[in-house]
Amino acid sequence: MQYNVLDLESEKNRNILLKISYDGSRYHGWQIQKNAVSVQEVFQNSLRNVIDEDIELKGCSRTDSGVHANMYCINFKTNSFIPCERLVMALNRFLPADIAVLSADEVPMDFHARYSCIGKEYIYKIWNNKVRNPFLNNYSLHYWYDIDIDLLNYVGSKLIGEHNFTSFCTVDNRVLTDAVRNVSELKFSKQGDVITMMIRADGFLYNMVRIIVGTMLRVAQGKIKPDDILYIIEAKSRKAAGPTAPAKGLYLNRVFY
Amino acid sequence: MQYNVLDLESEKNRNILLKISYDGSRYHGWQIQKNAVSVQEVFQNSLRNVIDEDIELKGCSRTDSGVHANMYCINFKTNSFIPCERLVMALNRFLPADIAVLSADEVPMDFHARYSCIGKEYIYKIWNNKVRNPFLNNYSLHYWYDIDIDLLNYVGSKLIGEHNFTSFCTVDNRVLTDAVRNVSELKFSKQGDVITMMIRADGFLYNMVRIIVGTMLRVAQGKIKPDDILYIIEAKSRKAAGPTAPAKGLYLNRVFY
Repeated sequence: MQYNVLDLESEKNRNILLKISYDGSRYHGWQIQKNAVSVQEVFQNSLRNVIDEDIELKGCSRTDSGVHANMYCINFKTNSFIPCERLVMALNRFLPADIAVLSADEVPMDFHARYSCIGKEYIYKIWNNKVRNPFLNNYSLHYWYDIDIDLLNYVGSKLIGEHNFTSFCTVDNRVLTDAVRNVSELKFSKQGDVITMMIRADGFLYNMVRIIVGTMLRVAQGKIKPDDILYIIEAKSRKAAGPTAPAKGLYLNRVFY
Repeated sequence: MQYNVLDLESEKNRNILLKISYDGSRYHGWQIQKNAVSVQEVFQNSLRNVIDEDIELKGCSRTDSGVHANMYCINFKTNSFIPCERLVMALNRFLPADIAVLSADEVPMDFHARYSCIGKEYIYKIWNNKVRNPFLNNYSLHYWYDIDIDLLNYVGSKLIGEHNFTSFCTVDNRVLTDAVRNVSELKFSKQGDVITMMIRADGFLYNMVRIIVGTMLRVAQGKIKPDDILYIIEAKSRKAAGPTAPAKGLYLNRVFY
């Protein structure tokens, strides 16, 4: 179906922000695509059962296949009078069990889930034990060597601040016009055998978090020297950094507006 | 295949105790059965790749479809010389990702995973929030009303000690010769929105933990009065207790020998 989004939207009189959470294991990311089930597609189908209108969903970011979200934000415009509280309940009734709507709120008409976003927080989970955890297979990276949290926090601190993160970006067909991002926090913590990296920034390049994790694990293994992180940043080349850690350990954790 | 277990076993000279963990979501319990995938069947097939012998696996208990195990114990007799440490690694290579061998140890020849067991500990997880948790769908019961932990700990304390637990046992074709069990601990705790009931006893009747949970949630809802728990015990009738809580929240947590 082709339609003019501007025309479609100009007629609507309410703008709704939804906060959702999803287990990304069986989805090919947020974005609708051919021959693969996406969160957006499943969401759009459920929404059609609740609001009988052509609706354009705007997600706060693209996410890769297998990536999870403790919080993901969507906005859409509608003429429906449905109260926000009822919208949450109705959507949760139609959505599959691995997607949940946490809240719905009316926002100003110019609010846009992606363009209004001023920052995001991701977490990355690592199961750090010689034996795998059967419950965390789709929810963490299994890494069996020792990890020195203090060392990684020292190296991670070098990434905090405004830097050109070209070395931590997968080169694809997207044009990289501006690779400068401001990382405000980066912290490793440990709870039992689960190590979590938390990173907060004003924005993220493609695969940035996963490449940072992959690089950090090279540091943990002694294959990258702690202070080499500065040269990796300066190199502005994907080849300088470590591998891209798997998607299944990654969670979009918070979105800031 | 039919063979005489006694004959088969009398030739073996080592007895191995395995501690395993599994996500029970896609299994119809431990016990091998027709037309359904069981943990035992999958385990036996993996073991065949490591030890080329007819082997009889003894599990510490039957578990229902969908029930999980943080620790489940198995023993088997073998003539293989494989060191225990290598057995762990080899089995983990062949087992699917939702089953893991935690340890292997040589035990006396008369050790039996089921008959040598002197106690077990189960936990039951409840997701206590109005909105479901997409990550805990197969791993907890979703319960949206308020739960007063202190009240449930008070009522639970009445179940501690030696009691006839007939009221907390599903009647099936198994003969119930002795329904007296000794519960040594029963405790509810809360971490964020996850409420966990932990129960330890010298043994459990069929569905005992799930019926206790179902009864406790009736207490939480005010549909069973706190002190009525004494009458429910005395009734020695399944009808006196609450419903059987779903399997997916239940985990065998520890096995004592």
